[in-house]
Amino acid sequence: MKISGRWHRAIEAQHSERCVSILDQTLLPHTVDWRTLNSLEATAEAISVMRVRGAPLIGATAAFGLYFGVNESASDEGLALAYDKLLATRPTAVNLRWALDRVRRVIQPLAPSERALAAWEEACRISDEDVAANKQLGEHGLALLQQLKPRSPGPLQLMTHCNAGWLATVDWGTALSPIYHAHEAGMDVHVWVSETRPRGQGAALTCFELKEQGIPHTLISDNNAGHLLQRGLVDACIVGADRVTSTGDVANKIGTYMKALAASAHGVPFYVAMPVSTIDWTISDGIRDIPIEQRAESEVTHLAGVDIAPVGTRARNDAFDVTPASLVTTFITERGLVTPTELHRLHF
Amino acid sequence: MKISGRWHRAIEAQHSERCVSILDQTLLPHTVDWRTLNSLEATAEAISVMRVRGAPLIGATAAFGLYFGVNESASDEGLALAYDKLLATRPTAVNLRWALDRVRRVIQPLAPSERALAAWEEACRISDEDVAANKQLGEHGLALLQQLKPRSPGPLQLMTHCNAGWLATVDWGTALSPIYHAHEAGMDVHVWVSETRPRGQGAALTCFELKEQGIPHTLISDNNAGHLLQRGLVDACIVGADRVTSTGDVANKIGTYMKALAASAHGVPFYVAMPVSTIDWTISDGIRDIPIEQRAESEVTHLAGVDIAPVGTRARNDAFDVTPASLVTTFITERGLVTPTELHRLHF
Repeated sequence: MKISGRWHRAIEAQHSERCVSILDQTLLPHTVDWRTLNSLEATAEAISVMRVRGAPLIGATAAFGLYFGVNESASDEGLALAYDKLLATRPTAVNLRWALDRVRRVIQPLAPSERALAAWEEACRISDEDVAANKQLGEHGLALLQQLKPRSPGPLQLMTHCNAGWLATVDWGTALSPIYHAHEAGMDVHVWVSETRPRGQGAALTCFELKEQGIPHTLISDNNAGHLLQRGLVDACIVGADRVTSTGDVANKIGTYMKALAASAHGVPFYVAMPVSTIDWTISDGIRDIPIEQRAESEVTHLAGVDIAPVGTRARNDAFDVTPASLVTTFITERGLVTPTELHRLHF
Repeated sequence: MKISGRWHRAIEAQHSERCVSILDQTLLPHTVDWRTLNSLEATAEAISVMRVRGAPLIGATAAFGLYFGVNESASDEGLALAYDKLLATRPTAVNLRWALDRVRRVIQPLAPSERALAAWEEACRISDEDVAANKQLGEHGLALLQQLKPRSPGPLQLMTHCNAGWLATVDWGTALSPIYHAHEAGMDVHVWVSETRPRGQGAALTCFELKEQGIPHTLISDNNAGHLLQRGLVDACIVGADRVTSTGDVANKIGTYMKALAASAHGVPFYVAMPVSTIDWTISDGIRDIPIEQRAESEVTHLAGVDIAPVGTRARNDAFDVTPASLVTTFITERGLVTPTELHRLHF
């Protein structure tokens, strides 16, 4: 997608030097800083501190991290070490494990001397496929949006949460891909962007993306979502996912669940957009089986370095919550649109 | 309630000088600054910019404001001007109009020379009655909390939203009064405090109050409420109210509605604590009839002076939402505990 009119991916492979450039998302929206990753250490750090984030982008970045790992030490031990180090960076997004497993499956049988190149190529393939998948799911999502009738005169009113745009993927995004496609197709759309405390990815990243693509949008506090849904100001919600169970339970950014409850209370469709790689076929009960990352208390007690509570205040910081399948209207994937009960058809 | 161990009211009448001291809530939690109000102008400003806030405290402060108004100009015109100026400061809390009407009803029939003293005395009575009402509703609320069985071993887990503590009233608070009474009665309680974006009154004010009273509490982002309710970590929600219709619809801080939906989804009782003066007997449909204050976009786009979104981002800032009566388990008032369908019994 575009920044200042120029097309970028959120992670860009530099083939000549075999390194990658990432847009450091901790500095957005005010600073656009591209950062080179060329080691296992730097890649693991970038995922941990969320210079890159979003389930598909974490997967793609980790794949390159595994390349750096075997480039530094191609032995079985080196591979295992790199795999474990990367897997430990974030617990909830299943794409991380999916991408690491995929690269390892390709390179494990190879002689150590052949592993690095094969890992690089597989990581590039994962990136390219992510772009293609997100483009495709955006086209499927567009068809869905075209069927919606706005509740009020004016644009189609969409609500999203956190950032599931191109910055959460390699390109196009998941939840935002249908919106980008709708905008390109000339549809009149407007997006309600919820701030997404504690880290504010809605305010910082989604507003940044939508501004750069020229799509009308309005920032709201997370608390405002229920009110807008109640007042008929939202025609559909679209969010991404960090992990979806085989039965359609959805782990996504904390706060997603309350939006889904409110959408359901007002008969507003609630769409979850994700590549099939986000589905964890090994589990069926999202509330029981998806590990929820606990992040630092300071993300809650501070904002942009400012202490919002009395000194010493304790906080709890669950980074994700689980929306049960019953609240999901439709999954938007690169293989098409499915309801929760049809999800299993994608398992082949 | 206490600050650094010393008992205070959130607004304190200085009888000798006929002025009032308020704790400037825009400076909390880091600075405890008492500010003298001694004019209509200063009082209206303090309400508008939220140096004082919370429906009952707005009412009490406005009553003193009307005293300052007639002290400055005791004519019918002076009274009308002061009344209108104060009424225009905040649109949603009905206690503002209730308190202004009460003082005006007392002083309007009097000779101008007698109005100021009568207004001062009525304002003091409103303050004192607010303290008594909140103490009483806290005792009724305590009885309710004593009947609850914690879902898990350990303390009774309560969740609140925004600040409905003593800083929102003259003393004791509404939602927090039962909690203070429970703590005094030796009950083991723990409070989940939601930050309450955009203005962060949960983080800044409720955490401040609970810390000063020594009550265990944990700050969460607003987004985390649904997750904690889903995981069985909340035994009851208690919130305050800015206006309650005759049928039990509740206008309260933006975000209350989504908490009520989530509590209902998990069978967790949702209590609304308020003095009877918060009930607006003239309206029955909260969604249709309660005016929702729209505040500045910058409250959403900025936090503590920091720009959280790209420069120029537009925002929408509804300060309140309406929770339909069907989601309220019990109203906790100074006249006792009532369900929404029993609310009309308090109308006499």
